[in-house]
Amino acid sequence: MSVPGCFYHKTLQMPTVEVCFSPALFPFIPASEKVITVVIDILRATTSFCTAFDYGVKKIIPLDSLEKALEYKNQGQLVAAERDGLKPDFADFSNSAFDYMNNTVFGKTIYYTTTNGTEAINLAQSRGEVAIASFLNSPVMVKWLTGQQKDIILLCSGWKNNYCIEDTLCAGLIAKGLLENDAFRPSGDSTLSAILLWESCNNNPEPLIKKSSHYRRLEKLGYENVLEYSLQTGRSSAIPVLEGDALINLALQTNNK
Amino acid sequence: MSVPGCFYHKTLQMPTVEVCFSPALFPFIPASEKVITVVIDILRATTSFCTAFDYGVKKIIPLDSLEKALEYKNQGQLVAAERDGLKPDFADFSNSAFDYMNNTVFGKTIYYTTTNGTEAINLAQSRGEVAIASFLNSPVMVKWLTGQQKDIILLCSGWKNNYCIEDTLCAGLIAKGLLENDAFRPSGDSTLSAILLWESCNNNPEPLIKKSSHYRRLEKLGYENVLEYSLQTGRSSAIPVLEGDALINLALQTNNK
Repeated sequence: MSVPGCFYHKTLQMPTVEVCFSPALFPFIPASEKVITVVIDILRATTSFCTAFDYGVKKIIPLDSLEKALEYKNQGQLVAAERDGLKPDFADFSNSAFDYMNNTVFGKTIYYTTTNGTEAINLAQSRGEVAIASFLNSPVMVKWLTGQQKDIILLCSGWKNNYCIEDTLCAGLIAKGLLENDAFRPSGDSTLSAILLWESCNNNPEPLIKKSSHYRRLEKLGYENVLEYSLQTGRSSAIPVLEGDALINLALQTNNK
Repeated sequence: MSVPGCFYHKTLQMPTVEVCFSPALFPFIPASEKVITVVIDILRATTSFCTAFDYGVKKIIPLDSLEKALEYKNQGQLVAAERDGLKPDFADFSNSAFDYMNNTVFGKTIYYTTTNGTEAINLAQSRGEVAIASFLNSPVMVKWLTGQQKDIILLCSGWKNNYCIEDTLCAGLIAKGLLENDAFRPSGDSTLSAILLWESCNNNPEPLIKKSSHYRRLEKLGYENVLEYSLQTGRSSAIPVLEGDALINLALQTNNK
């Protein structure tokens, strides 16, 4: 329990780090003038976003309905879709990271709708800036967020508004990283709890996540092989942020300058 | 981490234990035919309920507004009230357990309204049976719930729908007790997380709760002295349950038979 002591050493002027356990709790977080909401949906949307950007995807457009996704598909666009863990027949990609590990996605725009992830992005957008995190890009995200000097909300997408342990563990890892930089203060009990949960894993969340309801759901669908990949902290250098209606990779933009 | 292994050893026929982190998440818990919702509001409503029953209070009538409380006061009834941690002038009692530690409450009915606790009770009532828990009566509550053989929801009252660590710790303690009896199965990730949080305390939640937002709120009001008392596991033998519109002490009824 290395972090909680910092509760008393921070000043009120510092920006805050808040962990939100479910989109249903998001409206109860007090408003903030300068805020970045970081959406986390480990199994599987935000893990896939990071992977897609690593393989050169140019833009990801989050959509809130299957109908809209089908419309873009009919217009000849590339479409990723998932409902209740399954890919509808018309979609080009599921929300599995493995679908994006090939050169055909390089430079492309993908229209994307999922059960929980895209809904969380829409919600986050109502507050201000939006970024995307997973275990894969958590180190680069901690570094980037630290440089922004804004209040941070780590929004766990969960499963249909229910709490999910894998999203919370990633939020705990990122919150701990931000607080260790001594440039933020935790804003509530949820941040403290998420950090304690992460620390209880001793840097190995896999055994705990294998007991989660979401993993068991994927296991039933035969998709459990994505877990080991999803937990590779630092594998991705992507910094996905929402710009207008599209997610873009800020890391790529910076490199191109 | 002694409990989580049991996730795989329980049968689907067993009743479930679910921890609900906030009243705002309660609607997303799947319906159940036979369910007891256990309301937890450590600082301070449910701690006070248990204490009041230990000192012989006959009935506690939860009210959802100050207006109703004032109405009963004007009718000559005993009234407990709290808003944002403070007791309104007209009320006989605050929601501090210390207010009930005298013989004048013996045999009396108290009309009671608080910021979070009574709202959670009203919500719980919509699902079926309601019981009241705190650290004080947690052992007797585990024993009584185990005998009921119904699904259990441990509803953390929180603070204005925000997550509170002290309620979650108590839920983790009770969930762990229920699962150890091998008569329940955990129903989701929140139960697993609450147990891990409790276990991270090594049976001493005080240092962690002293870092909570709720404790700091009480500290500002000069009410922090109630914490040590509130964490005395097993001090109360009360089994408060809702019968009609009133909380009664089932332990007392059993003794009187």
